[in-house]
Amino acid sequence: MRKEYLLTPGPTPLPPEVQAALARPIIHHRTPAYRALFEEVLAGIQYVLQTKATTMMFTSSGTGAMEAAVVNLLSPGDRALVISGGKFGERWTELCEAYGVEPLIVEVPYGQALDVDHLRRRMKKDIKLKRKGGFKAVFATLSETSTGVVHDIQALGALIKDLPAVLVVDAISGLGADELKPDQWGVDVVIAGSQKGLMIPPGLAFASVSPKAWALVERAALPRYYFDFRRYRKALEDQDTPFTPAVSLVVALDEALQLLRKEGLDKVLSRHRMLAMATRTAIKGLGLELFAHRPSNALTAVKVPLGVDGKRLVGYLRDQLGVTIAGGQGEMAGKVFRIAHLGYMAQFDIIIAIAAIEMGLLELKYKVKLGNGVRVAEEILARLPA
Amino acid sequence: MRKEYLLTPGPTPLPPEVQAALARPIIHHRTPAYRALFEEVLAGIQYVLQTKATTMMFTSSGTGAMEAAVVNLLSPGDRALVISGGKFGERWTELCEAYGVEPLIVEVPYGQALDVDHLRRRMKKDIKLKRKGGFKAVFATLSETSTGVVHDIQALGALIKDLPAVLVVDAISGLGADELKPDQWGVDVVIAGSQKGLMIPPGLAFASVSPKAWALVERAALPRYYFDFRRYRKALEDQDTPFTPAVSLVVALDEALQLLRKEGLDKVLSRHRMLAMATRTAIKGLGLELFAHRPSNALTAVKVPLGVDGKRLVGYLRDQLGVTIAGGQGEMAGKVFRIAHLGYMAQFDIIIAIAAIEMGLLELKYKVKLGNGVRVAEEILARLPA
Repeated sequence: MRKEYLLTPGPTPLPPEVQAALARPIIHHRTPAYRALFEEVLAGIQYVLQTKATTMMFTSSGTGAMEAAVVNLLSPGDRALVISGGKFGERWTELCEAYGVEPLIVEVPYGQALDVDHLRRRMKKDIKLKRKGGFKAVFATLSETSTGVVHDIQALGALIKDLPAVLVVDAISGLGADELKPDQWGVDVVIAGSQKGLMIPPGLAFASVSPKAWALVERAALPRYYFDFRRYRKALEDQDTPFTPAVSLVVALDEALQLLRKEGLDKVLSRHRMLAMATRTAIKGLGLELFAHRPSNALTAVKVPLGVDGKRLVGYLRDQLGVTIAGGQGEMAGKVFRIAHLGYMAQFDIIIAIAAIEMGLLELKYKVKLGNGVRVAEEILARLPA
Repeated sequence: MRKEYLLTPGPTPLPPEVQAALARPIIHHRTPAYRALFEEVLAGIQYVLQTKATTMMFTSSGTGAMEAAVVNLLSPGDRALVISGGKFGERWTELCEAYGVEPLIVEVPYGQALDVDHLRRRMKKDIKLKRKGGFKAVFATLSETSTGVVHDIQALGALIKDLPAVLVVDAISGLGADELKPDQWGVDVVIAGSQKGLMIPPGLAFASVSPKAWALVERAALPRYYFDFRRYRKALEDQDTPFTPAVSLVVALDEALQLLRKEGLDKVLSRHRMLAMATRTAIKGLGLELFAHRPSNALTAVKVPLGVDGKRLVGYLRDQLGVTIAGGQGEMAGKVFRIAHLGYMAQFDIIIAIAAIEMGLLELKYKVKLGNGVRVAEEILARLPA
């Protein structure tokens, strides 16, 4: 007998309603029943995204929708400002380079958040940022999953709002966990993925596109077909997608969105806030250090303490205790571990995570007082609004 | 009480083993358990594709993998021969045009199959086909889902084999129903999708790439990122994909591939052959005409008889009888209806389809003798090997 616990920042655990929906007989996507369902799902996504902008669905991972933003907004030789402070910020740079767009990279050290005041000053002085034509788009990340940082998109939006450039935000892991108000904050394009706060398996991605961004879409000259926004907008007229969608995931998403609506987005966000706070406090209670200076409510990145083999710790939790948390990605491998509190997660998931880390650290001969972190977590979670 | 029957060429019905697998708790994709599963799945896909070529998996619909073939093999300004005789052949042309590749279109009239002898003669004479540089790729379709035609890929392969060009075949709806032997026939790239003969929901696509095609991949200059073959080949070294895969579909696919292996590919193909034969014979027994001159074993396209409103017929079957078949797509709307016998399908699915069509034709006042088609189908199906 082995019970498995998934505490990773995507895929996230599935609610039983979603599991049951996935097991239903499949339906055809070009039927009145599917069209009605799809319309409801897109309205639900707009609710979670807190936007009135046209919202499209792609059958792909989140990266597919990030690529869609690049190829639909820009032309070869265009410049784009990229806020880069981790693996997913760097993905924007890679995408720009793959498509012949020049990235003007704002390097944020790993673990730190974008300093918007510093960027404002730099934009005033830096010749490169001021030169003719400027930059057409700004690519940023809400929750940088590799470092556990949440960037201040509201402040970035205020800085960009009056420029001709559009602001594109990868909200893949942040959505539903960290506050985001695209229409109020001046975010033109929001990218989302299905396997995070939306609580269904990976395979669907989303993009909302503001009127300001649509003007760029019409002029963009980069080649595109599968991710061509114009095809998706046209298909929306018939509550359709241009290509066969991942039907079973759409059916499951409808269930997940009903759960989110029933709880209410405010409560969803405050639940994540409380779970994150409990996790962070427990981690500090264990004498460990947070990696993120401005931590996301989607996940908590923790510095692997001196003398501990980070990969062994994550492996022990997974293989011996059945608790899957995430290690570090890329440059961060072995240096951090990451506990997600994202999606279908409640108070006892945090207790499991902290207890497992305590037991794992003990196994790895790190000096830890068993139960100390859990006690601190309980103190916060006991105050969690019902 | 309403029982639903899905007889469309994708999505196709799900085996109960697949439904149950979809309902399982989700697992993380960067774990030893997933890597082992993914390796098994790719080996299973190679078994069904009958190829030893490197096979990659994408989280997308089939069109995504078609786009992948174009952007990974070609450079701007390249020429490609496109075999076009329906909506999916035309998709190759659209993809080429979207990416600045010049399509040399071999127009095959709707309902007809490629005449390879005619193409051979044309290639000898036609200046355009012979001019400097020639064409780098040939894009073709195994089963053209919009017309129900299966093209003679073996003959096309024999024609292309000694040219520098690579042969790319969209086998999305044909796979598992129509014979395809890429390695023997000289097919360099095979494209497949999950929601057809592979018997799982839509959301995964596949491409196998021969050594001859890999040489083009290295030189191709079209921009790409999400569908970059090189990233997928690199990730394969760790039984991984570069971007989060549609995990639940991969788990389901493992079940479906086990079913296909247990039945054995030869029997899978002969089952489809028999179901197709029964359907065609029954349709003729009803006095109706097949649309495809060279019909695929994946689906049977039928000409809507004079005096019958094709859209009403399909709507009546779906809304009143719970039997979903496909109407005509694009130009073919209202002119044909299409009965799929693809994937998780057995003899009584054909009986249901034919009985429903008989009842629908009666409802639409078409002169039909109830039971005549079903009787003919039974005569064939009674001989179906157990």
